[in-house]
Amino acid sequence: MAYDDQNIFAKILRGEIPCTKVYEDDKTLAFMDIMPQADGHTLVIPKEPAETLLDLSPESAAYTINIVQKVGNAIKKALGSEGIVLMQLNGSKAGQTVPHIHFHLIPSSIHELGRHASQMGDQEKIKQLAEKIRAELN
Amino acid sequence: MAYDDQNIFAKILRGEIPCTKVYEDDKTLAFMDIMPQADGHTLVIPKEPAETLLDLSPESAAYTINIVQKVGNAIKKALGSEGIVLMQLNGSKAGQTVPHIHFHLIPSSIHELGRHASQMGDQEKIKQLAEKIRAELN
Repeated sequence: MAYDDQNIFAKILRGEIPCTKVYEDDKTLAFMDIMPQADGHTLVIPKEPAETLLDLSPESAAYTINIVQKVGNAIKKALGSEGIVLMQLNGSKAGQTVPHIHFHLIPSSIHELGRHASQMGDQEKIKQLAEKIRAELN
Repeated sequence: MAYDDQNIFAKILRGEIPCTKVYEDDKTLAFMDIMPQADGHTLVIPKEPAETLLDLSPESAAYTINIVQKVGNAIKKALGSEGIVLMQLNGSKAGQTVPHIHFHLIPSSIHELGRHASQMGDQEKIKQLAEKIRAELN
């Protein structure tokens, strides 16, 4: 399917919509999920326009998973998370809600996750968590 | 934590325990989950001994995610899966049951997944699904 450049993450990448950023470089962006399934729920996305991992370039996938590792380790240190779920949904049939590939890092257990993309979080609390994670990344 | 080389995936990598393989090269192995959360549930693991993505080398993580893409695309073609959940659990607190890093590729929706690692699948059916996926990879 053709990439839809009006999706919300494309708008975030273009700076048209704000986000609570924890990391950015020329190829990737990491920011807080506004509908967290647990405290510290963070998204890592490649800047390359691709809908799913299956159509992302191998180069971008390789680079992005290394940033997922980096951000995951920062979350672990910042929040003392002993368990982190990495989740990445491919296709609306899988439950993907935004058609730009994104990796979820969720400090939780797979058995205790809140429902995916179901309700807005406390944005003030999210900002505070982001600050802690950013501090580990800097 | 020190890597436990007696875990079941380490034994599979050493050939001490059989698996239904769909892909193997010098750095990775992909095989069917014996307790599938959906038909076609496949695991991709690096051969490097590491417990989680957070302590896997960046080189191995980059290589392995490319194999995840390859196997994911094969599952999609072989089984006509329109939605694939990628899941990777870090730490027993996250629900990780085998302490060797593994990526789950599950042709399903995140909202309809069977419970993680809860019951044995129909091994004959699993073999037939593996054959279809292997055919796409060859």
